[in-house]
Amino acid sequence: MTVTASAEARREHILDAAEACFVRNGFHRATMQDLAREAAMSPGNFYRYFESKEALVVGLVERECARGAERVAEMERSGDRRGALLDIIARYFVSVTREAAVLRMEIWSEATRNPAIADLTARTEAETRDWFTATFAALATSPDCDPDHLYALLAPLMKGILVSRAILPDYDPAPAVAQLHTLLEIGLDGRLPRATRAGPRITALA
Amino acid sequence: MTVTASAEARREHILDAAEACFVRNGFHRATMQDLAREAAMSPGNFYRYFESKEALVVGLVERECARGAERVAEMERSGDRRGALLDIIARYFVSVTREAAVLRMEIWSEATRNPAIADLTARTEAETRDWFTATFAALATSPDCDPDHLYALLAPLMKGILVSRAILPDYDPAPAVAQLHTLLEIGLDGRLPRATRAGPRITALA
Repeated sequence: MTVTASAEARREHILDAAEACFVRNGFHRATMQDLAREAAMSPGNFYRYFESKEALVVGLVERECARGAERVAEMERSGDRRGALLDIIARYFVSVTREAAVLRMEIWSEATRNPAIADLTARTEAETRDWFTATFAALATSPDCDPDHLYALLAPLMKGILVSRAILPDYDPAPAVAQLHTLLEIGLDGRLPRATRAGPRITALA
Repeated sequence: MTVTASAEARREHILDAAEACFVRNGFHRATMQDLAREAAMSPGNFYRYFESKEALVVGLVERECARGAERVAEMERSGDRRGALLDIIARYFVSVTREAAVLRMEIWSEATRNPAIADLTARTEAETRDWFTATFAALATSPDCDPDHLYALLAPLMKGILVSRAILPDYDPAPAVAQLHTLLEIGLDGRLPRATRAGPRITALA
């Protein structure tokens, strides 16, 4: 193993340990000492890799983004990009572990108080929105598909599936994921139901 | 003011202070001393009302449920129960404050680690589900309305709107709420889109 590969493996090991520690104790409760102990490293050595809890969260979010990018690349290589997108989303949300969902909620929660995590969250949220709306636009099969409208529905639905997974031990995401899948399909086909009587009433309240 | 009314007003005052303190600092970071200071009370007096942070969360959740019950009573008195339900949901999610959304996320986050809060969350989630599915069944205008199916879609959507409100300072819930409203209407009418090609594929993954 080269020095670089070994450093990379060590980073991965630390991120796995931090993920477990944040999930078990929460971001705020976990100290750098707890995190070093979880990674079975001396604090001095640990600090050479990550200088703060915020840096660890940045590392975890970057890793999540890199994994997302791998799934996107897989989709790009596929002949059926639309089928691949639908498949990746369904697979992700049906099989997401409770730990991954708890970590995601822990990062959101910390984003409401910690400016560094808030910036990181705002940036990844904006990137995610841009990627999804561009992809919806590219995969739409009807001019009636409105990518922003579709994302405004699917983004909170996806977040809520993760919350349910995190807080309800017996939650089965499959029924919600099946409906997410259906809404995505009909949305790309430009057949998403439009607001009916709701429109004026809600506008008046907004 | 009677003694009882005054004790009730004091409880309300403490819950308001606790809400502000939990939102600003997070549940774990806030100490009973911080909470007493926020309420401008001596710790000794404060403990006479609430003996722990968990008791405060129970008080906050009970207050939220009582407010929900008031909205339900308002709906029951209305001639148009279905219109009232749609209106109450739209109004709540469009006008929810960022503080209320952050508090909700803080309670969810704590539920993943704190058994007392986990029990409370499981109980209120089950009550909420039972109320919604019974109400959907009562207000359905078609035998094709499947209350469980409708709730499996709307519950995560509602949760996700709150998360977006909490983590994105510029989030405008109106577009998602308009779609929530539409899906609820067509759901009650038994016209919620059914899974198409998605079905078998997702079942295979589950």
